[in-house]
Amino acid sequence: MDAYKILREEAFEANLEIQKQNLAIYTWGNASAFDPERAVFAIKPSGVPYDKLTPESMVLVDLDGKIVEGKLKPSSDTKTHQVLYREFSRKTPDSGIKGITHTHSPYAVAWAQAKKSVPVFGTTHADHSVEEIPCTDFISEEALKNDYELETGKLIVEHFRKSKLNPAHVTMALVAGHGPFAWGNSAFQSVYNSAVLEEICKMAFLTLRIDPEAKPLPEYIVRKHWERKHGPGAYYGQ
Amino acid sequence: MDAYKILREEAFEANLEIQKQNLAIYTWGNASAFDPERAVFAIKPSGVPYDKLTPESMVLVDLDGKIVEGKLKPSSDTKTHQVLYREFSRKTPDSGIKGITHTHSPYAVAWAQAKKSVPVFGTTHADHSVEEIPCTDFISEEALKNDYELETGKLIVEHFRKSKLNPAHVTMALVAGHGPFAWGNSAFQSVYNSAVLEEICKMAFLTLRIDPEAKPLPEYIVRKHWERKHGPGAYYGQ
Amino acid sequence: MDAYKILREEAFEANLEIQKQNLAIYTWGNASAFDPERAVFAIKPSGVPYDKLTPESMVLVDLDGKIVEGKLKPSSDTKTHQVLYREFSRKTPDSGIKGITHTHSPYAVAWAQAKKSVPVFGTTHADHSVEEIPCTDFISEEALKNDYELETGKLIVEHFRKSKLNPAHVTMALVAGHGPFAWGNSAFQSVYNSAVLEEICKMAFLTLRIDPEAKPLPEYIVRKHWERKHGPGAYYGQ
Amino acid sequence: MDAYKILREEAFEANLEIQKQNLAIYTWGNASAFDPERAVFAIKPSGVPYDKLTPESMVLVDLDGKIVEGKLKPSSDTKTHQVLYREFSRKTPDSGIKGITHTHSPYAVAWAQAKKSVPVFGTTHADHSVEEIPCTDFISEEALKNDYELETGKLIVEHFRKSKLNPAHVTMALVAGHGPFAWGNSAFQSVYNSAVLEEICKMAFLTLRIDPEAKPLPEYIVRKHWERKHGPGAYYGQ
Repeated sequence: MDAYKILREEAFEANLEIQKQNLAIYTWGNASAFDPERAVFAIKPSGVPYDKLTPESMVLVDLDGKIVEGKLKPSSDTKTHQVLYREFSRKTPDSGIKGITHTHSPYAVAWAQAKKSVPVFGTTHADHSVEEIPCTDFISEEALKNDYELETGKLIVEHFRKSKLNPAHVTMALVAGHGPFAWGNSAFQSVYNSAVLEEICKMAFLTLRIDPEAKPLPEYIVRKHWERKHGPGAYYGQ
Repeated sequence: MDAYKILREEAFEANLEIQKQNLAIYTWGNASAFDPERAVFAIKPSGVPYDKLTPESMVLVDLDGKIVEGKLKPSSDTKTHQVLYREFSRKTPDSGIKGITHTHSPYAVAWAQAKKSVPVFGTTHADHSVEEIPCTDFISEEALKNDYELETGKLIVEHFRKSKLNPAHVTMALVAGHGPFAWGNSAFQSVYNSAVLEEICKMAFLTLRIDPEAKPLPEYIVRKHWERKHGPGAYYGQ
Repeated sequence: MDAYKILREEAFEANLEIQKQNLAIYTWGNASAFDPERAVFAIKPSGVPYDKLTPESMVLVDLDGKIVEGKLKPSSDTKTHQVLYREFSRKTPDSGIKGITHTHSPYAVAWAQAKKSVPVFGTTHADHSVEEIPCTDFISEEALKNDYELETGKLIVEHFRKSKLNPAHVTMALVAGHGPFAWGNSAFQSVYNSAVLEEICKMAFLTLRIDPEAKPLPEYIVRKHWERKHGPGAYYGQ
Repeated sequence: MDAYKILREEAFEANLEIQKQNLAIYTWGNASAFDPERAVFAIKPSGVPYDKLTPESMVLVDLDGKIVEGKLKPSSDTKTHQVLYREFSRKTPDSGIKGITHTHSPYAVAWAQAKKSVPVFGTTHADHSVEEIPCTDFISEEALKNDYELETGKLIVEHFRKSKLNPAHVTMALVAGHGPFAWGNSAFQSVYNSAVLEEICKMAFLTLRIDPEAKPLPEYIVRKHWERKHGPGAYYGQ
């Protein structure tokens, strides 16, 4: 019973951080925390306002979607989290994915609604990804009718596979017509990446308003910024 | 005297929520709570700042516009609320409308000033409506001279009738050149829908700046999102 | 010494309201309160941050620009206030102007920098003015060299005279390349009008982005909204 | 050990002000305070969130980049600060530069990503600079490979030299594809200038959306606003 105490608390704190960073109004967002050893994640209960959340209200789910612990129904997006953990974390354990966040932050949603991936216009972007933030295609009618939330997860995974993107390096994605998903090596990190994504989307939006012909950042600067934070000789942080 | 205590408190809380959600500055917004059995609603007094409001200051009005209880003058938009309750709630009781909110939130006002209905660009919209957010025509000079606020209510009702929109499913409307009205099955829900409307209007605005040719969300995704929240097999929330 | 206590307090509260309504960062704004009987106004001291202000720090100035009371230097825009009180209040006492506010709120500044008056696109505008928000021409080099702040006041007054605008009805103006000034029947009301102006400027900005060909609100609706708040049969408020 | 107490506190307060003015999320910004006599500056430690900062955590660095005091690694942008102090402060001591701030505030970043300097559209800009806010070229691949952060400082210095800009008068710069740097006669003043820069960038952005052909402010008004705050007969402030 106490076994998942830390996992539940991590998910709880991450969900509060969604609101603190203004990434969602009311109940429009969910974060989960994953324990790779036990292959279980803690996720926000569905439709519960942030100020009613407690660590105890987090729902524990395994990678088959079975509820391991919890009295409430988990987030309606639970199966999307489940697929992403299964494909991005279990199958490539060194990717280190231990948290996922989904929000409806407005600039990220706007890019998703315009069905466009976000070009690398500056170092703010390059600090977090050397690639464009990818935007999937619309989910197909067939997939949607099969199992919508599960197939949303597969849509992201398939897009990464086809585009040869590494989920350990590109930790954000836009689902066309829907909105952003982000992940990281902790639930908190996945909310952080969601906030980064919103900021990148806003900056790219403004850049193209100032100059519709704006050019992406030269590749050598992109590479440098990524490496100083994430490369073998990274020297950012303590 | 105590009979309307709960109704007044509900209206009071909803009016405070307008400010909490940044949907109005100073006195620019009003919410009401409706009791269908007694056909009476509690509404904000006219021109009183939110921080001066008390539950006791709410004014009780019946569906003929008669003040049932209250020392202050009700909101100048009272007759619009009155018509909407009479037409949308009394005549179709299963619509469940028990609350109405009017604000001047900036993105919703901008769409109303541009006299354009808001396309369904994404799932944030589809979670709350399968239809475009409708925008009425300008009120006619004749109607305005007859009884402005009453006719504003009729303008919305008539627009819904002609467009065959069901107020139980489309809970938001823009009045051309004026701004947004939203309703719901409680006063709080009508403020929630006002916040949703502002967010949808902002997202649609940004989407069209990124791609002026942006296409609406495919119908099958719209339908799915609506159904998972509002259909017979809805599975969102607890 | 105590004679100006209320006037100083009114000016102090109004200056704090500038910051509360997010109309200025740091020291970028000033409000004054005018006593028509004594022909003296209390104004913010120059360059003092809002959190360092006290009622005692307000400076009392007469309509010739003489400091009546106060140890600090008054706002660098003092002569602009002085001219507006002299021309708009003393010469037309029924205009009721008893407060003036100047800010650098961003949407109002942007319209002023684009040297454009703001069309009446909706009822939010019409609730406060039946006219476009006027934008002056640039101040002439000759006037600027004569007495910049005094001539800025004259520029506004002259623009109103030529455009036959009544400062009792149009309580806001944009100075080209500079920013907004607003006034009202109290210092607080002038800050309120500054907040209204910023909101109107934002809404008009968004409206033209949605539809660059957006049409102004029909005259009969403009007139109605103004009259219900300010006409002889006004029925807004208590 | 106590010798740098005041310098560390000044840097600490300035870093908190970055967050208070909403100029950076999480750890995305850094401010430093310079002591010209000892040629040492105190700077934010790398990657530490603002709410974890203490005066003691500030790192003291000399103009050769040697850590004089401090247990943590200094900001990854330390060498950029070091070059700016060396070139703008040591070599022209009367420039008075005693503080530098770097942020990723969104409007300033957007102009930097669009690789455009910001025209002087109004008096808000002229109050702080008579010149456009300059934007450098992209850093060259050779310079980047040599020593990225050091060369970023040189890029700014070289841009000022070629454009004959005086760092005592133009206290802000955009680095192409990266973002804003600002300085001033104290660490606090450099954060103030960063906030000014963001506001100017937002206003210029909005101005060009209202009128893509907007003209810069006439030179005589630019000059006047600068002089009343910074000229020999300055009369702004106490």
